[in-house]
Amino acid sequence: VKISVVGAGSWGSALAIHSARCGHEAVLVARDPGVAAAIQARRRHPRRFPDVEFPASVRAVPAVSDVSGSDLVIFALPSAVLRQAARTVRPSAGGAILVSGVKGFEVETGRRMTEVLEEEIGGRPTAALSGPTFADGVLRGDPTAAVVACRDESAARAVQEALSNDEFRLYRSADVPGVELAGGLKNVIAIAAGIVAGLGLGHNTLAALVTRGLAEMARLVGAMGGQARTLLGLAGAGDLFLTCTGPQSRNRSLGEAIGRGADPARAIASSPEVAEGAFACRAAGRLAARAGVEMPIGEAVRRILYEGLSPRTAISELMSRPLKPE
Amino acid sequence: VKISVVGAGSWGSALAIHSARCGHEAVLVARDPGVAAAIQARRRHPRRFPDVEFPASVRAVPAVSDVSGSDLVIFALPSAVLRQAARTVRPSAGGAILVSGVKGFEVETGRRMTEVLEEEIGGRPTAALSGPTFADGVLRGDPTAAVVACRDESAARAVQEALSNDEFRLYRSADVPGVELAGGLKNVIAIAAGIVAGLGLGHNTLAALVTRGLAEMARLVGAMGGQARTLLGLAGAGDLFLTCTGPQSRNRSLGEAIGRGADPARAIASSPEVAEGAFACRAAGRLAARAGVEMPIGEAVRRILYEGLSPRTAISELMSRPLKPE
Repeated sequence: VKISVVGAGSWGSALAIHSARCGHEAVLVARDPGVAAAIQARRRHPRRFPDVEFPASVRAVPAVSDVSGSDLVIFALPSAVLRQAARTVRPSAGGAILVSGVKGFEVETGRRMTEVLEEEIGGRPTAALSGPTFADGVLRGDPTAAVVACRDESAARAVQEALSNDEFRLYRSADVPGVELAGGLKNVIAIAAGIVAGLGLGHNTLAALVTRGLAEMARLVGAMGGQARTLLGLAGAGDLFLTCTGPQSRNRSLGEAIGRGADPARAIASSPEVAEGAFACRAAGRLAARAGVEMPIGEAVRRILYEGLSPRTAISELMSRPLKPE
Repeated sequence: VKISVVGAGSWGSALAIHSARCGHEAVLVARDPGVAAAIQARRRHPRRFPDVEFPASVRAVPAVSDVSGSDLVIFALPSAVLRQAARTVRPSAGGAILVSGVKGFEVETGRRMTEVLEEEIGGRPTAALSGPTFADGVLRGDPTAAVVACRDESAARAVQEALSNDEFRLYRSADVPGVELAGGLKNVIAIAAGIVAGLGLGHNTLAALVTRGLAEMARLVGAMGGQARTLLGLAGAGDLFLTCTGPQSRNRSLGEAIGRGADPARAIASSPEVAEGAFACRAAGRLAARAGVEMPIGEAVRRILYEGLSPRTAISELMSRPLKPE
C-alpha cells in the first residue's frame, strides 16, 4: 500500500512514520522544501521529535506530484490552507481514498474538511480520521485508538486495515458530519477549559465546563445531521478529554494563557503551531446561527478572543444561566 | 428548609456546609460521636478540611433521631453501610425527600442506592444526587454543576432549588437508573485509568480507555432502562472526566498504585477513604451478566483486583480485541 501524507507538521510526520511502521510505502509532502531535504538527509525532522528516526520507507518530498499512485492520501494541514493544498493535489490524486486528518472548519464558509476535499477533488471516497491522538504518543507506541468515518464502508475498512497495528486501533464510523464537527468543536471547548484553568478555578469547574461543552457540541451535531452517539465516542468525549487535559494541547494552552491575563490577539499570534479552536469558534458561531441552536460556551470563547469579553465575566455569565433539566 | 446529611466524611460534611451556605438549617449526622462533638466544639472537622469553618447553622449530631422534621435527608456514606443507615433513619424520616449522594452499589444484590432507600424507607420521593463534585471544590466556592435525578419532578425541583446557589448549579433529570449507574460505574473506569497512568502509558491511552469505558457504561445503562444521553451529561462524561483526571480521586489513586506494582488487596486495604470502584466492579460484573452486555474494562479491573490478572496483560488484551465499528 502506498500512503501519502500532505503536511509535515507534528501530526503529518507522525502519520507518515506510523504508515511506514504498518509496513507501507509512505510519502510525506512538506510545504517547506527545507523540511523535506532535512528529513531525507538526516532521517530527522528539523523542528519536531528530535529523538525520532524516520524509517527508510518514508520518503519526504517537497512536491505534491509524488503522491501519484497512492492508495490513500492523508491531509494533515491547518484548516486555513486545506483548500489550496487540495487543488494542488488534484492532478495527482488518481484513484486514492482521500483522508482528512484536519480538525477544523473553513472559517469563511463553515465547510467541514471532507466537504472541502470533495469540492476540490471529489469523485472518490473521502474519509475523516479523528480521535484522541497526540502525535508523540503515537510515535512512542502508546496504545492509541482513533476513528475513521466514511460513507463508503469498504473505503472505511481499507483505511482501518491499512493504518491499524498492535498499538494503534482504528474504529469505523459512518457518521462523517458527527466525527468532523466533534473534532472541530472540541478545540473551542479546549480553549474554554484552558481559560478556566488559567483563572485558577478547580477541577469541578473544568468538569462542568467540559460537560456543558459536550452538550452544546451534541446540539450542533444533531441539528446538522450527525448522530448523538458519536459524541460519546473517540472523536467526541475521547478527544475532548484528551484536548482538555493533555499537556500538549495547543488550544488548551492558548486558553490558559488568556485565563492568566494574556492579550488574546497576541496569544493567538504567538502560538507555536496553529490553535484551530481560535478559527473554529468563528465558524461554529455561524453554523450554530444557521442551525438555530445555542452554543453559549463557543460564543463566550469567540467574544473573549475577538470582542474583549473578560474571562471572569464570561464564566459568571455561563454559571448564571437559568436552572433547567440537563 | 431543614436539611439533614447522614454521614460526616468529606462529601457529607461539604454538603452540610453547602446547605448552610444556601441559607438552610443543616443537621450533620456523624456515625462517630467524637466527630460530632469536635465539630460542635471547634467548628472544624477533626480529620478533613482543616481550614474550613462550619457555619453556625450546621449542627453536628451523633444521633439519627435529629433528622426528624427535615425537608431533605441526604445520605453520604459508603455504599456498604447505606442499608443499615437507612434502617436507623426510617423512624425519623417523616415526610422528607430522600436523596442519595452515594456513588456505588450494594455488592451482594447489585441494587442501586435509591433502590436500597426505597426498600428500607420508601413511601416518599427518592432522588439521586451525582456529578463532578470534589468536596474541596464545593467548599472553596469553585463553580460546580451537578444533577439531581428523581422520577417525581416536583421533588427534583425542590432539591434543585434548595441546593443551588451562585456557585453550585443543579440540573434535573428523570433518568434515575442512568444517573446512578453512571455514578457507580465511573469509579470502576477510574481505577482502570489509574492503572494506565501507573503503568506509564500516555494520554492517548488514557483517553482511549476512558472513551471505551464510557461506551461500556452506556451499554449497561441502556440494557437496564436508562438513557444513553445521561452518559453525555454531568453524571456520565462529566464525572468520569473529573474522576479520571482529578488528583483527589481515591479510585484513580488506587489504580495508579496497582499500575505501579502495588499488591491489589493491600492497596484496597490501605486506601484512606473507601474506593467505591473496588466494590462496584464486582456488582457491575453481576449486572452485566444479568443484562447480557459485555464490559471488558470493568471485567479486567475485577480480575486485576481479585484474580491476580497482571495490569500489562489486561491492557494488551483490551487493545487486541477485534477491529470493528465504534
